[in-house]
Amino acid sequence: MKALVYRGPGLKAIEDRPKPEIQKPGDAIVKIEFTTICGTDLHILKGHVATCAPGRILGHEGVGVVDSVGAGVTAFRKGDRVLVSCISSCGKCEDCRRGMYSHCKTGGWILGNEIDGTQAEYVRTPHADTSLYPIPAGADDEALVMLSDILPTGFECGVLNGKVAPGSTVAIVGSGPIGLATLLTAQFYSPAQIIVIDLDDKRLEVARRFGATATINSADGQAAATVKTLTGGRGVDTAIEAVGIPATFSLCQDLVAAGGVIANIGVHGEKVDLHLERLWSHNISITTRLVDTVSTPMLLKTVQSGKIDPTRLITHRFKLGQILDAYDVFGRATETGALKVIIST
Amino acid sequence: MKALVYRGPGLKAIEDRPKPEIQKPGDAIVKIEFTTICGTDLHILKGHVATCAPGRILGHEGVGVVDSVGAGVTAFRKGDRVLVSCISSCGKCEDCRRGMYSHCKTGGWILGNEIDGTQAEYVRTPHADTSLYPIPAGADDEALVMLSDILPTGFECGVLNGKVAPGSTVAIVGSGPIGLATLLTAQFYSPAQIIVIDLDDKRLEVARRFGATATINSADGQAAATVKTLTGGRGVDTAIEAVGIPATFSLCQDLVAAGGVIANIGVHGEKVDLHLERLWSHNISITTRLVDTVSTPMLLKTVQSGKIDPTRLITHRFKLGQILDAYDVFGRATETGALKVIIST
Amino acid sequence: MKALVYRGPGLKAIEDRPKPEIQKPGDAIVKIEFTTICGTDLHILKGHVATCAPGRILGHEGVGVVDSVGAGVTAFRKGDRVLVSCISSCGKCEDCRRGMYSHCKTGGWILGNEIDGTQAEYVRTPHADTSLYPIPAGADDEALVMLSDILPTGFECGVLNGKVAPGSTVAIVGSGPIGLATLLTAQFYSPAQIIVIDLDDKRLEVARRFGATATINSADGQAAATVKTLTGGRGVDTAIEAVGIPATFSLCQDLVAAGGVIANIGVHGEKVDLHLERLWSHNISITTRLVDTVSTPMLLKTVQSGKIDPTRLITHRFKLGQILDAYDVFGRATETGALKVIIST
Amino acid sequence: MKALVYRGPGLKAIEDRPKPEIQKPGDAIVKIEFTTICGTDLHILKGHVATCAPGRILGHEGVGVVDSVGAGVTAFRKGDRVLVSCISSCGKCEDCRRGMYSHCKTGGWILGNEIDGTQAEYVRTPHADTSLYPIPAGADDEALVMLSDILPTGFECGVLNGKVAPGSTVAIVGSGPIGLATLLTAQFYSPAQIIVIDLDDKRLEVARRFGATATINSADGQAAATVKTLTGGRGVDTAIEAVGIPATFSLCQDLVAAGGVIANIGVHGEKVDLHLERLWSHNISITTRLVDTVSTPMLLKTVQSGKIDPTRLITHRFKLGQILDAYDVFGRATETGALKVIIST
Repeated sequence: MKALVYRGPGLKAIEDRPKPEIQKPGDAIVKIEFTTICGTDLHILKGHVATCAPGRILGHEGVGVVDSVGAGVTAFRKGDRVLVSCISSCGKCEDCRRGMYSHCKTGGWILGNEIDGTQAEYVRTPHADTSLYPIPAGADDEALVMLSDILPTGFECGVLNGKVAPGSTVAIVGSGPIGLATLLTAQFYSPAQIIVIDLDDKRLEVARRFGATATINSADGQAAATVKTLTGGRGVDTAIEAVGIPATFSLCQDLVAAGGVIANIGVHGEKVDLHLERLWSHNISITTRLVDTVSTPMLLKTVQSGKIDPTRLITHRFKLGQILDAYDVFGRATETGALKVIIST
Repeated sequence: MKALVYRGPGLKAIEDRPKPEIQKPGDAIVKIEFTTICGTDLHILKGHVATCAPGRILGHEGVGVVDSVGAGVTAFRKGDRVLVSCISSCGKCEDCRRGMYSHCKTGGWILGNEIDGTQAEYVRTPHADTSLYPIPAGADDEALVMLSDILPTGFECGVLNGKVAPGSTVAIVGSGPIGLATLLTAQFYSPAQIIVIDLDDKRLEVARRFGATATINSADGQAAATVKTLTGGRGVDTAIEAVGIPATFSLCQDLVAAGGVIANIGVHGEKVDLHLERLWSHNISITTRLVDTVSTPMLLKTVQSGKIDPTRLITHRFKLGQILDAYDVFGRATETGALKVIIST
Repeated sequence: MKALVYRGPGLKAIEDRPKPEIQKPGDAIVKIEFTTICGTDLHILKGHVATCAPGRILGHEGVGVVDSVGAGVTAFRKGDRVLVSCISSCGKCEDCRRGMYSHCKTGGWILGNEIDGTQAEYVRTPHADTSLYPIPAGADDEALVMLSDILPTGFECGVLNGKVAPGSTVAIVGSGPIGLATLLTAQFYSPAQIIVIDLDDKRLEVARRFGATATINSADGQAAATVKTLTGGRGVDTAIEAVGIPATFSLCQDLVAAGGVIANIGVHGEKVDLHLERLWSHNISITTRLVDTVSTPMLLKTVQSGKIDPTRLITHRFKLGQILDAYDVFGRATETGALKVIIST
Repeated sequence: MKALVYRGPGLKAIEDRPKPEIQKPGDAIVKIEFTTICGTDLHILKGHVATCAPGRILGHEGVGVVDSVGAGVTAFRKGDRVLVSCISSCGKCEDCRRGMYSHCKTGGWILGNEIDGTQAEYVRTPHADTSLYPIPAGADDEALVMLSDILPTGFECGVLNGKVAPGSTVAIVGSGPIGLATLLTAQFYSPAQIIVIDLDDKRLEVARRFGATATINSADGQAAATVKTLTGGRGVDTAIEAVGIPATFSLCQDLVAAGGVIANIGVHGEKVDLHLERLWSHNISITTRLVDTVSTPMLLKTVQSGKIDPTRLITHRFKLGQILDAYDVFGRATETGALKVIIST
């Protein structure tokens, strides 16, 4: 079968690989119909993800059809249409039972990282009963690809951790795909203000279309002052970091009001400064999280009932044979305007 | 009247000062019977608290008798025995109404800081209706002095923010008075383990007497490794920072388990490193808080029902005329073994 | 001044009454600009509210201008435009401090009940600092009248107590003004389904316009079965009782799914049957609440940011001199289609 | 093998039955070492549990050793010492994933009810990976039998649902085994008062030994008045119903303070009166729950760390061959003083 394979820092290729097989009773083999590329895949390609070895098929998002299941799988059978979660969860270990699937003892984020992923014609998914989700009749497949990772990530790490609430004020630092997914799901809770901050005016324009009540280009160093003005001098109840570098985390510390939350989503490569000499008395919380995908069933219901339209995040479409082009377009997002790209098999 | 006055960095004196008078309708004048010294008073004396000007009477803790009240005070009258909260709260502003009294627009921590405090024969307390608490009949006055600041601080900033729970694991970094107050109040929730970490073996000995299930002298740099061993490799559910320096906050980052909380209590004078390059995916929370004293009524009930004995924190007693000696003993705690000192008028 | 006075069961009159005066330091006198009539006023007129004696000026909702304040009032002064909350809250007692203003020891629902109310040219409001809310510049006065009672009641007693959440299923039993206010505020949380149940098709038509995803006329006794069908056999996560009679509370018990909530809003005049022989094992909660109006600041923000338009509840407008007509129209709501009537002075 | 078999209303017998066998991949066969009798077993014997057919081996509590496992079981193997939960949980269905194991689509309370139970030499346990718990080295087996049902029931349905908190006031209506288990676990949260109410002075004497701060014999009809006196006229924050009849549920409605919770544990056989004509405005919650056993891991930690000694609930010990005697002693608890009886194989 065709697959996109990581070949070491800077290197990737479309290769012909054997179709995966059931290895454990809980496995399923899923024939992929739609997949996508994540910013994390670009991290891997830069050599920043130590757990991902050369030779690995990338991809941790997708929608498809169950091709076969192991002896222990009870919830799915051949022919079922399924959403593949980016997080594999055994459902049995202490962390799974407390809803922290991301730290499952035999799962977590392993697809397209420690085991072969979804940018291929077929994928083997461990713990299938608790890591796949049935696709409701009449669902829009492309929309559901957004539920593999990006929507639960924005929602859980940003919106839920950030305690977004009716009438509250929110700042989202970073207007890339993950910031925009956060923007869309934050609106579930009807905050009074959602201020989106970025350096790219085109992305800020998208943010306004997606529901931002204000946008700020932070190039001039005045973002914090502007947010203070917009919030009557208080700062925001929720500051969401959706970039992953020291400068943006630092900005969040300048934006957050006393009693507020800084919800980190960004994947950070280095330590940051935390200004406890100022914040120790500000009654704030800072949260971190690798998405658990516990909200996937809830998000499915919001999509099915029309409360959110995730296809707004999709800007480009490719066939699996063109996936190198898809990587190129997605990697040059500033120029191409790419948010999420859909790859169909 | 006699009062302990801050005279600039390194300087303090007992002075004779006029008895305070009602200035606003919400004020009360309280005749102090018992007060104490806080670590924060030592900070002021080092010149670290910019809001506290020379000439200020120090002290933000105490128990006494209402001497007079302003025209707007309805909950108290002359002769009532009262606990003075370290936090003044108007009860009306948005922050007070959401329970964040520490950020009251016209209150917060002002006693012995922005206005004259309790280390004197009399004190003027603003917002008396919502900043004093009636002392129940039969209460132990000295015990209640511990409810002005240290017990609510340990409980709110450490135990509540840290989400201490039955069966959970807790590490308290710092075994001074505030760490020990945290240790005492953490036991309200029956955690399975409370590990106290300090550099002073005498204080660790006190911690064991106060209910620590294990203590660690961190001088050898092995504290994190020892905690991991004690917790089956996981780290603790709650790491409480009760010192206020970069090294101890750093240690907390090494102790906390995935899904856990770092609850900061310490007053920090400089920024710290936050290792988001490791913690971004660990599903942790970090909390900061200036005590709100919202828990004072609850704590009064626990003291009155014998669930906690705060007098265990009291090691020395002085008369107000000897308060310079009291400062000396409290300031050389390592030698003297002082925890809290009671000063009676 | 002109006022609408309760004269005993079935009796009311417009009378000329002296303008109220400050009685306590915390009082304010508010010149009413807009008020409205509540279903509770009709209860009083039927003689069902024992605390309301003949001679009482009715009304507990309104918007106006501060005319004078007592010596203890610090947050407001003559000329301030204010929203009058239906709940008076001292801000000092134990219940106020825990956010249960409805049970304030010297307040609660007293306006137009135990003391004279707002259906008059002027009203005396006790505990003004914590029972009035400043009106933001540019606000729509009529919209804000809906924040005195009906919106916080629907939101606190129905939506918050009912734990409405993104993707969840909600049934609202009763499509009168309070049910519709609940319907509007439930949408703050983006539930997947809001099913409104009533006996009046015209009101159900309004419910559909206001955002109900389905409506059921329960006249045929099939409402529970229909709800089961609409929810895949499960029942709803949240069943909201907005009528106040045994039959509707009984229906809620048939609608609620295992793990769900029955949130009672209705004012009940008699006991109801609770089917614990069935529900003991269903992991449900039943909540009751007299509105606390703790959410008023939050609701003001949602109105000001355009997340909700409360004027949709307003169907008729009268001058104070025509208030008997207003009562007539409001009292014959089935025929007149009245929801909320605005009375201007 | 020997087993205690339900033979229809009023009838039970020790019979010789074939050893159970693995039927599904998720099953385990556990050799029972210790089991016990539950009040629910007496309900079954009265013919009150329609789901339990004659011929059924009773019992849903126990500790033993894994004898064999199905092909899909990964967490346990032959020889592992395990605690058998009274609730079987697949860990996969929507209700399991939200922590409501009691409503598992293919589990819930089935042991000794819909399938053969633990009062036998061997038992087949479905969904073994998520329904058995490993026994820590050095644990007291008899203590852990109390974790199969009675401790999580008291803790989840009474203490957690009832929101017991430091300094709060609690009334437990019913001083049988389940009321006493609630009493023991309520102390995890250090409430100020725990008032236990019963008709049996001997059981009240036990309650005092187990930590009740006051006990009331309700025979004279003055229980509610006495509780009001003990709580300064307020009533209790938490009223726990641990009997299951209309009179005790009615009493709870008289005990609960405004803002409080009635947490129902009792198994009810008929409807009860709910006095909404009084309670609609009291801001209370009423909760029901079939135990989910989500707290079993937490409770194991509290037992292992010595925060609770469940063996205090054990009054009698029998061999499996004497189980008819055990039923007799347990069934005549008023005379025999029986709380929990241990049956060893």
